[in-house]
Amino acid sequence: MRRGILERYRAYLPVTEHTPHLTLFEGETPLYHAQRLSAEIGVNVYLKHEGANPTGSFKDRGMVMAIAKAKEEGSTAVICASTGNTSASAAAYAARLGLKCYVVVPHGRIAMGKLAQAVIYGAEVLAIEGNFDQALAMVREIADRYPVTLVNSLNPYRIEGQKTAAFEICEQLGEAPDILAIPVGNAGNITAYWKGFKEYVQAGKARKLPKMWGFEAEGAAAIVRGEPISEPETIATAIRIGNPASWKKAEAAADESGGCIDFVTDEQILEAYRKIAEWEGVFCEPASAASVAGLIKMAQLGKCKPGSKAVCVLTGNGLKDPQTALHATEVKPKVIPGEMKAVLEWINVEMDSAV
Amino acid sequence: MRRGILERYRAYLPVTEHTPHLTLFEGETPLYHAQRLSAEIGVNVYLKHEGANPTGSFKDRGMVMAIAKAKEEGSTAVICASTGNTSASAAAYAARLGLKCYVVVPHGRIAMGKLAQAVIYGAEVLAIEGNFDQALAMVREIADRYPVTLVNSLNPYRIEGQKTAAFEICEQLGEAPDILAIPVGNAGNITAYWKGFKEYVQAGKARKLPKMWGFEAEGAAAIVRGEPISEPETIATAIRIGNPASWKKAEAAADESGGCIDFVTDEQILEAYRKIAEWEGVFCEPASAASVAGLIKMAQLGKCKPGSKAVCVLTGNGLKDPQTALHATEVKPKVIPGEMKAVLEWINVEMDSAV
Repeated sequence: MRRGILERYRAYLPVTEHTPHLTLFEGETPLYHAQRLSAEIGVNVYLKHEGANPTGSFKDRGMVMAIAKAKEEGSTAVICASTGNTSASAAAYAARLGLKCYVVVPHGRIAMGKLAQAVIYGAEVLAIEGNFDQALAMVREIADRYPVTLVNSLNPYRIEGQKTAAFEICEQLGEAPDILAIPVGNAGNITAYWKGFKEYVQAGKARKLPKMWGFEAEGAAAIVRGEPISEPETIATAIRIGNPASWKKAEAAADESGGCIDFVTDEQILEAYRKIAEWEGVFCEPASAASVAGLIKMAQLGKCKPGSKAVCVLTGNGLKDPQTALHATEVKPKVIPGEMKAVLEWINVEMDSAV
Repeated sequence: MRRGILERYRAYLPVTEHTPHLTLFEGETPLYHAQRLSAEIGVNVYLKHEGANPTGSFKDRGMVMAIAKAKEEGSTAVICASTGNTSASAAAYAARLGLKCYVVVPHGRIAMGKLAQAVIYGAEVLAIEGNFDQALAMVREIADRYPVTLVNSLNPYRIEGQKTAAFEICEQLGEAPDILAIPVGNAGNITAYWKGFKEYVQAGKARKLPKMWGFEAEGAAAIVRGEPISEPETIATAIRIGNPASWKKAEAAADESGGCIDFVTDEQILEAYRKIAEWEGVFCEPASAASVAGLIKMAQLGKCKPGSKAVCVLTGNGLKDPQTALHATEVKPKVIPGEMKAVLEWINVEMDSAV
């Protein structure tokens, strides 16, 4: 049964005898072999579904570490800026340990499920008329001035916790993959995975390193374009970030690994999003699908060696953002009267069209 | 790492050499010790969070079994009526195996996340102007007349899969609990848990049986009232069912175990729902909180022996129904201009009120 990452990967983490035994049973997330995507793309595609974490995103791995250390170091309150996933995670772990949690989000620009999470876990939520990058600047200043711990990915414990996903992939495959495809927003996650793969090679737990392929959304592709974007725009709200905090580290991960940072369009993201659900039975959030969309793009450019193993990181659970799913499919459920005759007509038509 | 229930509990399930190796890595869900709830209620409270399953509800355990057997038996299509969770699960597993999935739901009466799931996984969704009980009657007739397999809990494989949650609880606690508190809607789940506990005692894996305490919502309490309810009403949409299919079996589970079937009000459900999130860091759907609400009710009636162990089943993930969370908390995030001055004013007020 699951133990949580602080216990499972204790030897690789800054866990001391004074660190609280905190867990919501994050980690040990599924790695799905994606049969139809593999056939389409021509490489062995695996999906690392981080949406299976307790609050529905990869943030839980870093947050359990950051919140446990905040408590260990005597803090009674934490704060973060968020496009939604970070605040959900911070609020849940803070609730579990009895810490106060303050959250600053861009008003009207985070998915409904994520807002609901922060609120129900009891965080104090402030919505600013501005974007994520502005919210982040604000919480940094607050954390400098007040006795409250910043738990954005600038907090180094976050990266430590998040790197454990790379450990798991090596264990699940028996080796590091050839390619690690990952969405890039604030760029902390690609940084964390790269650190994790390197540490596992150093520890003798893996023999090779993957190429790191990071994918931004076209309308928020600051790293690809080489300059911050003041008004980032994309349907993938979780990576709608115009000035990534871990910009340089993400570039280093791509460079050192012989990989790249590229971008994908919203259309490519939504197409991948639908395929992941319809073909593989896995429902991720739109931003997550940037990894698969990016892999498809690279394959079309002839950059995927046949037979290689690619792991696409799905960063969040599709239930975070049901509205996008309903819009993206353009399918409205047919509504009919609750009479047997009408239902039998429907099934007749359906069955005929299925033949 | 996780294996899925067909492999993990193969010896206890109707798995043959011809059964497809189907899994989305359902099961092995967390069992949380609930510290603050334990203190309030006066018994050791554990939360079995079935919302951590791949499609976010306990239905996945039964559905993986039912869909695998449908395929094994040559079926190419499945159908179900649903308040939302069954259809999400059926659609996902059917997608994974390449089966066609038909879903009939009551129009306007299922949570948004659940509808989004069925649609994005590629099911054909029909919304009828009627309630769940009418939808179930219809799909039963369709399954009789057409070459399509019914995967509602009338399908006996569903109960087989679902019973594995009882196995896990015994393994996680090292023994069966004294009390198993569980929401009751269509009544298949309480039936499945009771079967599971009995089988584990027979197999020598547990030494005792829990008392089974099932809780309906007051506005849909057909079993408690002793008659079907034609227009069931409750905020807990997942258990808004007026004529439970497994009625007699649920009564038998309560009777044989020395337990009971009782009801809780929507107000009690929402209060428990908030406490589970704010106190324990666990976000479940409203219907799930009926188990905790029921336990609190029983404790207030003096029916909980101090020091006993009670497991409350949380049947679904809170992200299925974000709107209820936002309404239930009655907290609207404060919206302010994105200026440092305004944010500092907010944090000053917050910090002062926290002292």
